[in-house]
Amino acid sequence: MAKIRVVVAGYGNVGRGVLAALKNNPDMVAVGVLSRNPDRVRKSFNEIPVMQIADVDTWLDALKPDVAILCGGSKDDLPIQGPALAQRINTVDSFDNHSRISEYFAAMDVAAGKSGHVSVISTGWDPGIFSMERVVANAFLPGSRAYGFYGLGESGGLSMGHSDALRTIPGVKDARQYTHAVSASIEKVRSGENPEFTPGDMHTRECFVVLEDGADQNAVAETIRTMPGYFAPYKTEIHFVTQEFLDQNCAGFPHDGLVVAAGNTGNNHSARIEYRCIWGSNPEATANVLVAHARAVSRLADEGKCGAFTILDIPPAYFSMHSKEELLKKFM
Amino acid sequence: MAKIRVVVAGYGNVGRGVLAALKNNPDMVAVGVLSRNPDRVRKSFNEIPVMQIADVDTWLDALKPDVAILCGGSKDDLPIQGPALAQRINTVDSFDNHSRISEYFAAMDVAAGKSGHVSVISTGWDPGIFSMERVVANAFLPGSRAYGFYGLGESGGLSMGHSDALRTIPGVKDARQYTHAVSASIEKVRSGENPEFTPGDMHTRECFVVLEDGADQNAVAETIRTMPGYFAPYKTEIHFVTQEFLDQNCAGFPHDGLVVAAGNTGNNHSARIEYRCIWGSNPEATANVLVAHARAVSRLADEGKCGAFTILDIPPAYFSMHSKEELLKKFM
Repeated sequence: MAKIRVVVAGYGNVGRGVLAALKNNPDMVAVGVLSRNPDRVRKSFNEIPVMQIADVDTWLDALKPDVAILCGGSKDDLPIQGPALAQRINTVDSFDNHSRISEYFAAMDVAAGKSGHVSVISTGWDPGIFSMERVVANAFLPGSRAYGFYGLGESGGLSMGHSDALRTIPGVKDARQYTHAVSASIEKVRSGENPEFTPGDMHTRECFVVLEDGADQNAVAETIRTMPGYFAPYKTEIHFVTQEFLDQNCAGFPHDGLVVAAGNTGNNHSARIEYRCIWGSNPEATANVLVAHARAVSRLADEGKCGAFTILDIPPAYFSMHSKEELLKKFM
Repeated sequence: MAKIRVVVAGYGNVGRGVLAALKNNPDMVAVGVLSRNPDRVRKSFNEIPVMQIADVDTWLDALKPDVAILCGGSKDDLPIQGPALAQRINTVDSFDNHSRISEYFAAMDVAAGKSGHVSVISTGWDPGIFSMERVVANAFLPGSRAYGFYGLGESGGLSMGHSDALRTIPGVKDARQYTHAVSASIEKVRSGENPEFTPGDMHTRECFVVLEDGADQNAVAETIRTMPGYFAPYKTEIHFVTQEFLDQNCAGFPHDGLVVAAGNTGNNHSARIEYRCIWGSNPEATANVLVAHARAVSRLADEGKCGAFTILDIPPAYFSMHSKEELLKKFM
């Protein structure tokens, strides 16, 4: 059977993760990398063609891809790039601005729908797997609420968005932010209380900050603690450290999370569902999920489907490289 | 919107759980119970009509059901009842003989397919949710194996099948069997070793047995320990107890389980996925899952689909009572 031909749009952490993940999926093959700056990418990567993302006709013609995995950012890249590319090729992306998913879905549905393509949006582990687990937990335990906790391990989970926010503060040279789940709140959910939480009840934030020479430590700390949305609602611990400390102790992108729902079945018997994942590399986890969805995109397209889809619209078998017969025999 | 009209075939533990679960799903309504012995059922249940399951034309005409939830046993009931009823109505069942699922799927696919009905087979928590979790874990972490462990809590999980097996032994008056997961083996899987296990490596079995007057305790113990498949491959602990002890300490049907897969993402970063559920009542948990699948059956039928399906063939959104818009906004 012909392999699914994939182009990877973007050569950041997720894009590199996708290229690595494709090697573990024998039914797919990476045929090219698309970038706004192909020359820069080529300096470190030459295994397959690296092409200018704006030259759509050129790379469509040269690479004959079936699916593009879009690895750009949700803030600036995907809102423009997504609808533009969905008119030309089947796509999958990890758009993760939760409050704007409905809007992005609508734009992608129009773009992919009118050109006859399939676009799976907003997948990875959250949104993505966790979204699916929230929906099925709520369906199997009606009335329960599915809660998401992040950073349950001792060192917590590295948040890219919060680390970026720290680095925008004047006087901050470099920084990392680790999210910690509040264990007592997890236990409350497990008990079946279905509690009301503020964000600060569920998570705390721990910052490792390297200051510029001569920066005012107290002023930086105050700016962090009062930053709306990012830190103001949370108990926030701040460590001022050296660049050496940061480089040695805060490398990598570990993250983890838990979806938990608890309630009762029919005659008041307790019931609890938990989905837990622990990732050594957050962007590689996202990449693995994107690649499995590229397989689903290809199958949906083969069926003649078009428009936008999320993980909620896709039968689980479509993610698997195994045949229907194998799944019935070995996985049911 | 009209409610989905459900008939419940069988009034055992699962059937009663389905009737209770339907009350928590406002888009569905139980319109009747089907039984081989309606008079016996009516002695304890009169809320809705109880009808003879063999009189298919009569109850189809009187109750106008959209879906039948089949709550019979996998050994004797479903292999006959499933294909017979799938020719007349949309069905969902929890056929749980793992080694014969392919064969049952084929029979149901023919029966439902040629009559234009939808039959979702083999759903509950295992097979069912756990099957789905095995497939997605394997798809998102290619090369990893998804392991199933049962009875992780202190008291273990009550196995109906093994309890029934104990009760077939001459000299045994009553019995319960609790399955226990071997913690050290779970830790091996979590470490990413993807180990090879024999069944006895993963679980132990604990039996509470009430003897008939004058039965030979040693002979019964020997019969248990050497019973092929059920106990011979496992470390088995046997407690001989009184009926009073059993009634007081072994009531109810608690069960729990874990699907766990561990491996690496692209550049050799560790990755682990775990799905855990803990049920106060095993048959009520199965019932809750069956009811959510009855909703999916109704949607698949509305789309004009027909034939047999498993949880692997169904988009997760089909299980939810929430609209597509609500799911995009609140669950993604």
